[in-house]
Amino acid sequence: MHIGLIGLGKMGFNMRERLRKGGIEVTGFDRNPEVTDVVSLDELIAAVPAPRLIWVMVPSGGITDAVITELGDKLDAGDLVIDGGNSRFTEDQKHGAALAEKGIHFADCGVSGGVWGLQNGYGLMAGGDAADIERALPVFDVLRPEGERADSFVHVGGIGAGHYAKMVHNGIEYGLMQAYAEGYELLAAKDIVDDLPGTFRAWQKGTVVRSWLLDLMVKALDEDPGLESIDDYVEDSGEGRWTVEEAIANAVPAPAITAALFARFSSREENSPAMKMVSALRHQFGGHATRPAK
Amino acid sequence: MHIGLIGLGKMGFNMRERLRKGGIEVTGFDRNPEVTDVVSLDELIAAVPAPRLIWVMVPSGGITDAVITELGDKLDAGDLVIDGGNSRFTEDQKHGAALAEKGIHFADCGVSGGVWGLQNGYGLMAGGDAADIERALPVFDVLRPEGERADSFVHVGGIGAGHYAKMVHNGIEYGLMQAYAEGYELLAAKDIVDDLPGTFRAWQKGTVVRSWLLDLMVKALDEDPGLESIDDYVEDSGEGRWTVEEAIANAVPAPAITAALFARFSSREENSPAMKMVSALRHQFGGHATRPAK
Amino acid sequence: MHIGLIGLGKMGFNMRERLRKGGIEVTGFDRNPEVTDVVSLDELIAAVPAPRLIWVMVPSGGITDAVITELGDKLDAGDLVIDGGNSRFTEDQKHGAALAEKGIHFADCGVSGGVWGLQNGYGLMAGGDAADIERALPVFDVLRPEGERADSFVHVGGIGAGHYAKMVHNGIEYGLMQAYAEGYELLAAKDIVDDLPGTFRAWQKGTVVRSWLLDLMVKALDEDPGLESIDDYVEDSGEGRWTVEEAIANAVPAPAITAALFARFSSREENSPAMKMVSALRHQFGGHATRPAK
Amino acid sequence: MHIGLIGLGKMGFNMRERLRKGGIEVTGFDRNPEVTDVVSLDELIAAVPAPRLIWVMVPSGGITDAVITELGDKLDAGDLVIDGGNSRFTEDQKHGAALAEKGIHFADCGVSGGVWGLQNGYGLMAGGDAADIERALPVFDVLRPEGERADSFVHVGGIGAGHYAKMVHNGIEYGLMQAYAEGYELLAAKDIVDDLPGTFRAWQKGTVVRSWLLDLMVKALDEDPGLESIDDYVEDSGEGRWTVEEAIANAVPAPAITAALFARFSSREENSPAMKMVSALRHQFGGHATRPAK
Repeated sequence: MHIGLIGLGKMGFNMRERLRKGGIEVTGFDRNPEVTDVVSLDELIAAVPAPRLIWVMVPSGGITDAVITELGDKLDAGDLVIDGGNSRFTEDQKHGAALAEKGIHFADCGVSGGVWGLQNGYGLMAGGDAADIERALPVFDVLRPEGERADSFVHVGGIGAGHYAKMVHNGIEYGLMQAYAEGYELLAAKDIVDDLPGTFRAWQKGTVVRSWLLDLMVKALDEDPGLESIDDYVEDSGEGRWTVEEAIANAVPAPAITAALFARFSSREENSPAMKMVSALRHQFGGHATRPAK
Repeated sequence: MHIGLIGLGKMGFNMRERLRKGGIEVTGFDRNPEVTDVVSLDELIAAVPAPRLIWVMVPSGGITDAVITELGDKLDAGDLVIDGGNSRFTEDQKHGAALAEKGIHFADCGVSGGVWGLQNGYGLMAGGDAADIERALPVFDVLRPEGERADSFVHVGGIGAGHYAKMVHNGIEYGLMQAYAEGYELLAAKDIVDDLPGTFRAWQKGTVVRSWLLDLMVKALDEDPGLESIDDYVEDSGEGRWTVEEAIANAVPAPAITAALFARFSSREENSPAMKMVSALRHQFGGHATRPAK
Repeated sequence: MHIGLIGLGKMGFNMRERLRKGGIEVTGFDRNPEVTDVVSLDELIAAVPAPRLIWVMVPSGGITDAVITELGDKLDAGDLVIDGGNSRFTEDQKHGAALAEKGIHFADCGVSGGVWGLQNGYGLMAGGDAADIERALPVFDVLRPEGERADSFVHVGGIGAGHYAKMVHNGIEYGLMQAYAEGYELLAAKDIVDDLPGTFRAWQKGTVVRSWLLDLMVKALDEDPGLESIDDYVEDSGEGRWTVEEAIANAVPAPAITAALFARFSSREENSPAMKMVSALRHQFGGHATRPAK
Repeated sequence: MHIGLIGLGKMGFNMRERLRKGGIEVTGFDRNPEVTDVVSLDELIAAVPAPRLIWVMVPSGGITDAVITELGDKLDAGDLVIDGGNSRFTEDQKHGAALAEKGIHFADCGVSGGVWGLQNGYGLMAGGDAADIERALPVFDVLRPEGERADSFVHVGGIGAGHYAKMVHNGIEYGLMQAYAEGYELLAAKDIVDDLPGTFRAWQKGTVVRSWLLDLMVKALDEDPGLESIDDYVEDSGEGRWTVEEAIANAVPAPAITAALFARFSSREENSPAMKMVSALRHQFGGHATRPAK
């Protein structure tokens, strides 16, 4: 099998390597001349035998949009485009419809595993028509970890369903990290705890909270036991927000995941206007001192 | 009527003035020689006619404890001690029991209104035996705003009930301030809003959110329209924590009040250990950049 | 002054009455023949002298959209449409642009005060061009409570700003209600409190938490001291969700308002899938008993 | 090595079996005659060679208190008592001090792993003096999973530190379960998801959210794909509450863990007084219909 792969960044670069090791021929295209196999999208399309399978692995939003639009112009009916990036599921439905007008097939695939996917394999959540998913199975089977397919791959539903599941996956990830992080801070706050990194390490086997994220925390604490070198500024990258928006749209209470999202927002505020107001109010009614602005 | 008042700080000082204006004779004692009427507790006890009514208005915790213990040693059976400070309700129950052994009566009274109470009158929540509350009614009637007694005074229940109600009152206050403050920040975040102070001002009459706290926000924005001079560091002073602890003890969900409390904790953190861990984790699994510690 | 008023429901009906009492001539149109003044929109347009001021007071979403589209077809250049309903601010921007193509002016106005506005007056937040707002001032001045205009009316900013402010106002309202309600439940949970309705009543004058919403709680407890007749099912009607969505879009932490929204979602769930899963998990790892489904 | 084990319930029964399989001689005592090895505490003490190691595995609170008091009366100086139950860390400090007066040693050990510990081994967090922990290492080494000791056992700190770490562990566990559960509900709410159990299954290998709890969710969904048989009523058992109380005591924001706790409280309410009040308020100001009480 020979596929095209557009986008050779942190994720795509590793995926190409894993695919090749697994026996899939890959022609990759990226704007970065140091990593690309071909110099243009046209060249990529020429290189991949029809009916083509083109995997798109570029940043979600405008760039994905542009790439898929261009593919719509250049591919042939019967080709299959799979968006493996972090697109919002509503985008997939738009992309699928636009490509379908030209007879081009479309599927979406949420890909989890981060930089470790190269060696561990990726967890995959696909959305699309059964026949299209079937056609891409050899690719999925190489990308995912060895072992039972059902433990690392799922055909979630129609177009968009893969990214919907990935969005929820990431929302859960926000909540999990926040829960561990709150526990970490609580252990750090208490004199009674003499061995904080050792405590996390000891949770790795046997406890109810053991997980891959826990293993990574142990690794992070190995590298920097007090996390002294790291600032508390935390970005968020789309899926957390979308998860809360979907919770709202579906009237699903999601307080833990939302708490995780808001904690990131707070982490990025130098000076919270809300808390300035609370301080001002306490001064107004109770004569409590405010602190002068930094 | 002639009463003793122990503690002439921000609250007690104003209360003495309001009581005197209302025709209550007050002998006040405070360690601060500039405000005290007498030089010792003994002198205060000698000055107040028996059976005495002694109002205690000192910081909650150890100081209240010490004052009430000393009163227990020095007062006579039949005297009545009222703790008008911000004691935890469980303290009242201890104090009442200790004084009862000596025939000294005890009641507690939550007092709300802050520095404005002098001119507006105070909202009062009393706990204790009906006869003791009855005996202190002339004092309550002067402290509270004019008008219907039931609009500003309540006998909530037995000893501790007054402070319990005050604790919940303050917990609600945390939640109210947080809700307004979140709205303030959201208005401040949006370019579309040209007149933010004017918006709060216009909410004062007619809207569903009109309140005394809103009036104070308008005042704060008058004094400093962008709250430029104020830091976002917000203290908390006991009742918010106790309210959440009571919520937990009674299995009552209290997410909004708790959010307000946690927002204050966050406002005081220079560098959140929890968020450092979240940043470290994102780096571990996704290769996302961390920021170097400030 | 003679204006048209479209929509004579709970809000519009009362507003017509207040406007007429204030000396504004109003021709009202509603599909309900029992309340309407005219039988059609055409008749309303014919009745109001040009350049017309037409106030739209219909449910937000599709109905507002349809009414404004029809007005766009039927009004003349120079007429002014004011949307006083609860439209999302993004809708205003669409409506304003569509009407502007035909030379028709548009402004939006958030209206707060509920069923009490008839007697108390309404709090008003307007968005639009200064000249259009100026033109409608006589209407605003009658709708709002007497007294200083700035205490009940604000020109927040350009088109959409009025509804943006109203959205935030309602978000705050969610948070305020939730905070009071949590306090209410906590008082209700504690044996020590003998007079719960009396406690709320006594907060009305003098305390920091006094507000109009508090007065309404007292009224509700007067009518039904234990709220026995009322179910805990609580609807939400758009602005709460939009507020949280805006918080997310602007990276503003809004935990208290969001807690209020999620509490409403929870209140409507007969059986929470999330909590079924938590119960199932506790059974899996700890052998804890689950309850059979109701 | 020959130890005494008091308490042969769900946890203690399995631990005796694992210890015996691992070559530790165990004399177990329980009030339940079907599982006990001896008929009385005296007989247990007589059976275990001095200096004794007695492991206590009974419900936290009063029962643990009673057992440790009785052991204080009956054991000899030099004996070592280990509380392996779910006691609050403050209890340990009391127990340690009381036993120390009689020369009896005390250590605490948080034990995680639930009903699976028998086969998987338990995660262990110990608190106490280094010499006492050292003395009990053979027991810890059999209870924990095979492999590196540091991956499943930690000497956290002084007396109480083990239970403190276990408390935080359980607080984290609350947060993790809540995050997964919210994600589950969100997937269940969306038509687009055709294979919900399959999605959880596919997260087991390769994804960032893989964990032991996830494996258990897959197991639960295998047994009952829609969780139809399970009610949404969820108990809480101490550590979650203590964790939030410690967060408050140490001014640590813990919104996700607290959200998990409150969600359990909500799950147990037939009719929320707070939400009745919100409904009553909406009726008061907006004329919104309330639902009649069920």
